[in-house]
Amino acid sequence: MNKITELFKIKYPIIQAGMIWCSGWELASAVSNAGGLGIIGSGSMKPEILLDHITKCKKITDKPFGVNIPLIFPYAEEFVNICIQEKVKIVFTSAGNPAKWTPFLKENGMTVVHVVANVKSAIKCEAAGVDAVVAEGFEAGGHNGKEETTTMVLIPMVREAISIPLIAAGGIGTGRGMLAAMALGADGVQIGSRFVASNESSAHPLFKRKILEAVDGDTKLSMKRLQPVRLLKNKFFDDVEKLEIEGASVEEIANLLGKGRARKGMFEGNPDEGELEIGQISGIIKEIEPAAAIINEIISEYIQAKKELFIFDF
Amino acid sequence: MNKITELFKIKYPIIQAGMIWCSGWELASAVSNAGGLGIIGSGSMKPEILLDHITKCKKITDKPFGVNIPLIFPYAEEFVNICIQEKVKIVFTSAGNPAKWTPFLKENGMTVVHVVANVKSAIKCEAAGVDAVVAEGFEAGGHNGKEETTTMVLIPMVREAISIPLIAAGGIGTGRGMLAAMALGADGVQIGSRFVASNESSAHPLFKRKILEAVDGDTKLSMKRLQPVRLLKNKFFDDVEKLEIEGASVEEIANLLGKGRARKGMFEGNPDEGELEIGQISGIIKEIEPAAAIINEIISEYIQAKKELFIFDF
Repeated sequence: MNKITELFKIKYPIIQAGMIWCSGWELASAVSNAGGLGIIGSGSMKPEILLDHITKCKKITDKPFGVNIPLIFPYAEEFVNICIQEKVKIVFTSAGNPAKWTPFLKENGMTVVHVVANVKSAIKCEAAGVDAVVAEGFEAGGHNGKEETTTMVLIPMVREAISIPLIAAGGIGTGRGMLAAMALGADGVQIGSRFVASNESSAHPLFKRKILEAVDGDTKLSMKRLQPVRLLKNKFFDDVEKLEIEGASVEEIANLLGKGRARKGMFEGNPDEGELEIGQISGIIKEIEPAAAIINEIISEYIQAKKELFIFDF
Repeated sequence: MNKITELFKIKYPIIQAGMIWCSGWELASAVSNAGGLGIIGSGSMKPEILLDHITKCKKITDKPFGVNIPLIFPYAEEFVNICIQEKVKIVFTSAGNPAKWTPFLKENGMTVVHVVANVKSAIKCEAAGVDAVVAEGFEAGGHNGKEETTTMVLIPMVREAISIPLIAAGGIGTGRGMLAAMALGADGVQIGSRFVASNESSAHPLFKRKILEAVDGDTKLSMKRLQPVRLLKNKFFDDVEKLEIEGASVEEIANLLGKGRARKGMFEGNPDEGELEIGQISGIIKEIEPAAAIINEIISEYIQAKKELFIFDF
């Protein structure tokens, strides 16, 4: 037991990140049934789709699960209302001001967690009354902070700045990674990429295969002048990079991005023209496995690595 | 005792990075006398200066110490010969092909370590016969890899790829950081920024003060199209960034860089026009201390943090 298992009433302080196009009811329920905290990623859903995922998730697990809501998303308010109506008890908010929704969510009996990438935002979260903070490092897939602070540096900084529970994210996909995050002062870990590469994720099989093939250096932060996002390198990534090197305007880059690139890449499996959001840790993922097997492996490796830790003998 | 303490015949697996303008005989001997491995950074020296530093270091410590030699440096061959002549037993090579000098250094009875930032180079090091590898993540100060792989991800990848001893670098400056690095599979740690902020470092006092003032997001990778280098943001950094956004050629950027910018910033203390190489971990450094005190704090914090690690109870 620790602060995170007590907060969410879960067995292990392992949280599956709510990710667009990849984490629906199937993945979230599998993680929750295995003792972690599963999260439905609403950022790629319409309201009726989210409602459907929540309904299915409740049918297949009696364990706690959560919903991730990107606050800048046009449906954010509708999603909040759906979560209240459906008695979802845990909401992870991201990409927006935590002060806007936290009081309302708390009044409705919810546990609220907000995702940040820097110290200032973590302090704002605590002031806004959130229950826990996810601090996400530069190595994480998808949307990313402008500070480019890595998990190794961000976690101890945030740990020092706030006293509410802290969840580390970015670069964590194994038991050793979890042990490192806990050593840095985290109370739990949020894992994205490794769960994208699970049987239950709704990522397209071609995207999953690309993850297994990735080696170090195959992901990179893109669109730094819009909103930085970590992508697997492909034709689409190269097209964006070319524009950026040529000194294109923000509008020109936004035009290239257009609409539906993420869906095209991650859900429809177009590896050239689509946007493939994934973290650096993709480079060490070598197998597609059931979510429960991933959690069990993480726990075994954590226990073993902890036993092998260097001891100072004087 | 572990692989790294045995390899170097030192008390603690803590290595002080050989850094230009900051790590002369005073810092290296202080670290070695405190039980770590001190390293003279030759990258900013002329041959007679390096000889002087080695001579002084030998006078003030009977403990092992090393010299860092950037292999692309014009004096690299002279430095190798000085090290052989002065019976320096440990050489850390960087920025070049490890196959070029390793066999010769090994024939001369030296322990050879090479610094890398990606998996491919680590494998090349092992094939070249080096004794250990330093794997340095994206968060590290100064010269940096094009892959941008962070310590959190790089260490387990390199650990899997090689079987010789592995030293983690980048984002490590505290006991918690060391514990995290060891959890990821490292046999020891190399610490740069924290030792720049020591009494014995030859960094200019104004540069040291800038390190104490740094917060998260204050360093950034610069000159990505020449050779990526992590700098503290200042006027010089902004000038480079402006050129890069405008789509300047590599030559134009090299012209702005000119000569002597690193000396001006780090050694002469010009905080606007000089180049200030430092890691992201600068954001958590709050005090200038003697090197021995830094090592003792790291050890105490490591021991304490190890005791507090989360335990899975079933």
